[in-house]
Amino acid sequence: MQTPQRIGWIGTGVMGLPMAGHLMDAGHQLTVHSRTRTRAQPLLDRGAAWGESPAETAHAKDVVFSMVSMPADVEEVHLGKRGTLSATTPPSLLIDMTSSRPLLARTISEVAHDRGVAALDAPVTGGDVGARNATLSILVGGSVEAFERALPLLQLLGKTIVRQGGAGCGQQAKVANQILIASTMIGVCEALQFAKAAGLDETTLLESVSAGAAGSWSLANLAPRIVRGEFGPGFFVDHFVKDLAIALEECRASGLQLPGLALAEKLYRMAQDGGLGDRGTHGLYLLYERGCV
Amino acid sequence: MQTPQRIGWIGTGVMGLPMAGHLMDAGHQLTVHSRTRTRAQPLLDRGAAWGESPAETAHAKDVVFSMVSMPADVEEVHLGKRGTLSATTPPSLLIDMTSSRPLLARTISEVAHDRGVAALDAPVTGGDVGARNATLSILVGGSVEAFERALPLLQLLGKTIVRQGGAGCGQQAKVANQILIASTMIGVCEALQFAKAAGLDETTLLESVSAGAAGSWSLANLAPRIVRGEFGPGFFVDHFVKDLAIALEECRASGLQLPGLALAEKLYRMAQDGGLGDRGTHGLYLLYERGCV
Repeated sequence: MQTPQRIGWIGTGVMGLPMAGHLMDAGHQLTVHSRTRTRAQPLLDRGAAWGESPAETAHAKDVVFSMVSMPADVEEVHLGKRGTLSATTPPSLLIDMTSSRPLLARTISEVAHDRGVAALDAPVTGGDVGARNATLSILVGGSVEAFERALPLLQLLGKTIVRQGGAGCGQQAKVANQILIASTMIGVCEALQFAKAAGLDETTLLESVSAGAAGSWSLANLAPRIVRGEFGPGFFVDHFVKDLAIALEECRASGLQLPGLALAEKLYRMAQDGGLGDRGTHGLYLLYERGCV
Repeated sequence: MQTPQRIGWIGTGVMGLPMAGHLMDAGHQLTVHSRTRTRAQPLLDRGAAWGESPAETAHAKDVVFSMVSMPADVEEVHLGKRGTLSATTPPSLLIDMTSSRPLLARTISEVAHDRGVAALDAPVTGGDVGARNATLSILVGGSVEAFERALPLLQLLGKTIVRQGGAGCGQQAKVANQILIASTMIGVCEALQFAKAAGLDETTLLESVSAGAAGSWSLANLAPRIVRGEFGPGFFVDHFVKDLAIALEECRASGLQLPGLALAEKLYRMAQDGGLGDRGTHGLYLLYERGCV
């Protein structure tokens, strides 16, 4: 059992809710805040306190976490008028687990430092399943000291927790991760489309190819959902479009040409425009299915 | 121990050589043929007989295997003037393990049938490592009866052996497999390029992302080789370009639009044109490295 800490938790969506639950399971005292209070209700029912604003949620806490949607939300939650860093007594450690802009992570780290707060960017990978089973991979940017302080808490949320470098490096690593996922998912969707056109049995195909050099997490976990016609998230297309836009911005800034990423960003934007924003990332398959690629 | 069979084996490259070796390990009597005799020498040294032609190699055997390079080679080896199906006493079973055209597999099956020979198309995935360790995934097309006869031999070569359907379906499944690998590899190359530009430590990054939703066989097995600057095959770019061309031909024939496959075929052709044909598939990274994408 860890020494109970006073923790503020902001964001109780498909990822944040089970993650905050793991901290409560370990005996920590949570104050939670969410844009939509009803989504935090399962935590309030278990004894978490409600914070009216990010500032109130962060006030006088040991650590404040955020797991929200967009970079704009991250900015508002930490740097906004009622943001965590405007708390009367700010927390000593701030951990943003949202996938967000590397530059914003560096800005938050600087503003936090000026208020005597250590900050980590700690985006995750592993999806809703990883969040529920506490098997996430957590990509951390920030000082070694802050990382070591955060580690016992992060170990309640994930299995693979690695410091990637200074402020922003967690977000950079997450960008690399999303670049991997995007192209892999294109391969999964196209292989299944091909199999269908060729008259192959998709389940028999998956049995063969999942075991060889074509194997991937996406193939093992999402291809069977595609075959069953299940397209719920998982990880929202809307959020993935955001991640890919961040990735493209980063590439433009450094003059890097990544044609696979550019294709993926285009296809996922088409999927979003086609009304698939609330599906899981494997919902890209439906864009092919409609003959829209 | 299986009852020793008289087996003809054609093709002793990076895949064929260790595979034929596994059959010898199990006590089968091999006659081997290779375009370049010296490449078959390790098998001859162990007691295999030499066949002067595919016909001689196949003559009066229980089974003849082929594991060659290109569809044109497959055609020559089986349907050519001195091909296996012109043998005075043809073998009762023909198994082509080359990645080749689905239509050619169906043609070979028909010609074989006319000579009283059962034929299977049985391309593999798992690369040189899978060939050496007998952990290949084998994708089989052909009759149930021929599949069941072949199974004890195929089990000496691979771990996952699945019949995908009638003649040609093994090749169709292999096409789906290569579609998966192509896009996955683009993701691997682009993620590592991004990491390098962002100043991340690539090995630390791989530690994080291999464990999560971005994980794949390529990331686990080939990304570390890229980081170490090792670009030998594995699986030749030249052969992969052939596979992707077959895949595109199949798509054109069925009116299927697969933009990820089209991009991969273009990039790998550029890699081949740029002198990278004799590298492994992960040699695509060097095309990015040179700023040629």
